[in-house]
Amino acid sequence: MRTLSAADLSLNTATVSKQWDLAQCIEGCACHGIGGISPWRDKLQACGVDRAAKLIRDAGLRVSGLCRGGWYTAEGALTQAVIDDNRRAVDEAAAIGAECLVMVVGGLPEGSKDIVAAREIVTEGLASTLDHARAAGVRVAIEPLHPMYAADRACVNMTAQALDICDRLGDGIGVALDVYHIWWDPDIAAQIRRAGKDRIHAFHVCDWMNPTQDMLLDRGMMGEGVIDIPSFRRMVEAEGFDGLVEVEIFSSRNWWTRPGDEVLAAMVAALPAI
Amino acid sequence: MRTLSAADLSLNTATVSKQWDLAQCIEGCACHGIGGISPWRDKLQACGVDRAAKLIRDAGLRVSGLCRGGWYTAEGALTQAVIDDNRRAVDEAAAIGAECLVMVVGGLPEGSKDIVAAREIVTEGLASTLDHARAAGVRVAIEPLHPMYAADRACVNMTAQALDICDRLGDGIGVALDVYHIWWDPDIAAQIRRAGKDRIHAFHVCDWMNPTQDMLLDRGMMGEGVIDIPSFRRMVEAEGFDGLVEVEIFSSRNWWTRPGDEVLAAMVAALPAI
Repeated sequence: MRTLSAADLSLNTATVSKQWDLAQCIEGCACHGIGGISPWRDKLQACGVDRAAKLIRDAGLRVSGLCRGGWYTAEGALTQAVIDDNRRAVDEAAAIGAECLVMVVGGLPEGSKDIVAAREIVTEGLASTLDHARAAGVRVAIEPLHPMYAADRACVNMTAQALDICDRLGDGIGVALDVYHIWWDPDIAAQIRRAGKDRIHAFHVCDWMNPTQDMLLDRGMMGEGVIDIPSFRRMVEAEGFDGLVEVEIFSSRNWWTRPGDEVLAAMVAALPAI
Repeated sequence: MRTLSAADLSLNTATVSKQWDLAQCIEGCACHGIGGISPWRDKLQACGVDRAAKLIRDAGLRVSGLCRGGWYTAEGALTQAVIDDNRRAVDEAAAIGAECLVMVVGGLPEGSKDIVAAREIVTEGLASTLDHARAAGVRVAIEPLHPMYAADRACVNMTAQALDICDRLGDGIGVALDVYHIWWDPDIAAQIRRAGKDRIHAFHVCDWMNPTQDMLLDRGMMGEGVIDIPSFRRMVEAEGFDGLVEVEIFSSRNWWTRPGDEVLAAMVAALPAI
């Protein structure tokens, strides 16, 4: 396994979502020696895409991803509005030089109980985005989300399932693996081998608090919880993954209440737990 | 699919856990024409096993299960205390004529991040219980729990994983399938076929609320949420399952606040949603 330093980390802007805008995130990364950033689209758009691209470039940061495209089921069927929004996401990812566009694919359509149909909408939507992404030179990364989000956020919940979709759709699409979502998967080792270097487009870390007090907003800093994070890093690196390790923490009760600089310092201090 | 009536339902006592003791549950089932009961061990022990057995027999109820054995990881390793408690659970299940002993296998041991090791403890524990259960004529049913409980309740989270354990351990052990835990599983249809009639020892229903406000205690009455429950009943019945449909609802904000009779009436009224 690599010896990690701060330069190998990427700050997902959700980690300081309540404290900083994108310009502050970029400055914070530079200040703490963090090597990359992964903006959420709301922060990117608030900053302005061209200005953000320049700020990121000037700071010498890599962009481990753009969060997020997807949400294909938002309107019950794959509408032109949803397709267009994903095209814009691809264009934004290209503009900032993002190494991938992370896809949170969407849950059950309003009023629906048909998760199989939802998954078909998602696959169709990804195929549509992928055409544009290939042309734009942007890699698409399906993020399998924890099954507790199957209804409201993403109906793709297993790495195997995400890779099945990749198999169907061909080149240019892979997975974003977040330990929070996959740590419990009894088949994860085999699926990481199956993904291989070419399809592991991102590696996200945080920790699973035990007990967890909120299904969305109670994620921990690496080392605070029960995930054996190094075991997952070892697996992706065994496949050749050498990208940035992206830190994405939603924490309304703790990390979002602290100064941004304290959070970034804690990220760097948590390197031994990754 | 069968046409269900109240006589095909079983009341898991957790559904009225705050309202009724076991004797009241038994009386409630008889009063509402519900065909069976599935006691939790705390209520069973409070009633007294012999008295409970007589009350259940006198009321003409079937016993779709006893909840719950397992929790093999509770002491960090498989201790004699844990083994003995599971032997007692088997004996209690036999005493009340339970059609299976439902196993919630336990999560990560205190302080551990090694879910693979936890799963080995569980398998070893189940093997130990199974020896006694076979001798006592009690079927053991592994309940795969939703992955959001992997840390704190059960490290067996997929039906495939539970069946892998059954394959290793041989006769007398199968699964308890609860739609709440399995509804999101992209491989569930194949796994239900793999389980087959002989290994589907119980079928539990409730509903997944969207949004869900509490990870443990916000389950819905059938029809209130987003699970296509009939699709699952169709699958288990296609394999020949003809047991009781057990209703198990943990609901601190709603169903636990209502009179027990109202809850049982709602269960019967929800038959079309099953």
